[in-house]
Amino acid sequence: MPGKTTLVLGGARSGKSVFAERLVEQSGLEAVYIATGQAYDDEMIERIAAHKERRGSIWTTVEEPLDLTGVLAAHTGPQRAVLVDCLTLWLTNLMMAERDIAAETARLGSAITELPGTVLFVSNEVGLGIVPDNRMAREFRDHAGRLNQAIAAAAHDVYFIAAGLPLKMKG
Amino acid sequence: MPGKTTLVLGGARSGKSVFAERLVEQSGLEAVYIATGQAYDDEMIERIAAHKERRGSIWTTVEEPLDLTGVLAAHTGPQRAVLVDCLTLWLTNLMMAERDIAAETARLGSAITELPGTVLFVSNEVGLGIVPDNRMAREFRDHAGRLNQAIAAAAHDVYFIAAGLPLKMKG
Amino acid sequence: MPGKTTLVLGGARSGKSVFAERLVEQSGLEAVYIATGQAYDDEMIERIAAHKERRGSIWTTVEEPLDLTGVLAAHTGPQRAVLVDCLTLWLTNLMMAERDIAAETARLGSAITELPGTVLFVSNEVGLGIVPDNRMAREFRDHAGRLNQAIAAAAHDVYFIAAGLPLKMKG
Repeated sequence: MPGKTTLVLGGARSGKSVFAERLVEQSGLEAVYIATGQAYDDEMIERIAAHKERRGSIWTTVEEPLDLTGVLAAHTGPQRAVLVDCLTLWLTNLMMAERDIAAETARLGSAITELPGTVLFVSNEVGLGIVPDNRMAREFRDHAGRLNQAIAAAAHDVYFIAAGLPLKMKG
Repeated sequence: MPGKTTLVLGGARSGKSVFAERLVEQSGLEAVYIATGQAYDDEMIERIAAHKERRGSIWTTVEEPLDLTGVLAAHTGPQRAVLVDCLTLWLTNLMMAERDIAAETARLGSAITELPGTVLFVSNEVGLGIVPDNRMAREFRDHAGRLNQAIAAAAHDVYFIAAGLPLKMKG
Repeated sequence: MPGKTTLVLGGARSGKSVFAERLVEQSGLEAVYIATGQAYDDEMIERIAAHKERRGSIWTTVEEPLDLTGVLAAHTGPQRAVLVDCLTLWLTNLMMAERDIAAETARLGSAITELPGTVLFVSNEVGLGIVPDNRMAREFRDHAGRLNQAIAAAAHDVYFIAAGLPLKMKG
């Protein structure tokens, strides 16, 4: 039996990760954290450390910058809630590695309908500002929007978070 | 009898155009597409072509970069659903043509209360990022916000779209 | 008895200030406006003047760029509705004055639970665009998100405004 999929969408510092972590902790399931972020610089190292400290020791952490579909297949299960934090950093990694984004988006979108456990995705909404000056940023924004749409279409529950508060958009 | 006006607001790649197109197709009315975008560069040409392909042949397409109020008066009717895609590109065109934006906004806002058929407007929300560095972008953002407020005030239904999902804000 | 606290969150030109002003005027309470904005340049001077003109003469205006917690303690009261417009400019001022933002955020967050009257905060959501290029803007975005979360957690009512329309997120 496929499990339940949730997308938690929000802006930077909207409280979306904390909201998703709380959903996992309240589920009573075994908590697995899939970190897609890579420690490129001091700022990122700090953020990852702060995340780890906040979650505490009940979580198992798996780091995977690129093969998200594979790592989900390996770590989901009926007794587990797997939190992917976040899709936006995964997309950044795919673009830096020059992967085929449309193919990766489609692969993840179809894989998640078959996963055997509870999965939560955290993702940034990045399309609500002024059009960015450079083409790379515009492409990122387009890919991010399409990825969010694909996951939202496959998910059972979708939340939009602002100022730490959820608006339920689906489910 | 004036018809029904709908505003579909959302970010870049939020699925707002597809959502609005589906509303038109489900209406059973004669579908008219008013494209305000102009093919300035390859990127825009690609986007317009992709839009056309997605909509298919049941649509009549009218291209109008500036005189939106005039073209709406000419093409609306009791048996028609007219989709304007999008207000943000229309605003860009007005600014490049150095038109009086406040006057054009007021003119459109008052015209739409009298249109004899169903009209849907697609527009971008662009004010939810960091304040842009350059004054032109800040002015654009201000005009876009005021335009969205004017159309939302006159509209019967307003939707905010994120990740392809609608939040109904009015109606 | 502590009063009622409301956070009105939204983008640039979303109509959030007008929405908050209307809430104050409908309350029947004595209206106090705390302006955190400083007139750095012509653009800001114009905006402040337009704000003043719109509000009219029933409001008492207090200007305070930095000591928001102090000025709130001095001006709130059981017969008053105090509108703070806006938190985002206050944060800008704190950063320019090199204050400890986390401490100021915590101080305001705990003070507002004890204020004796009705208080409304207007604030910008700035985290829904592309990651800004410069570190200062990213820091601002992080501080703004944390400040909005702190005020939203302490507030009774929270609204998200787009195109002049409110979505109630709390209360």
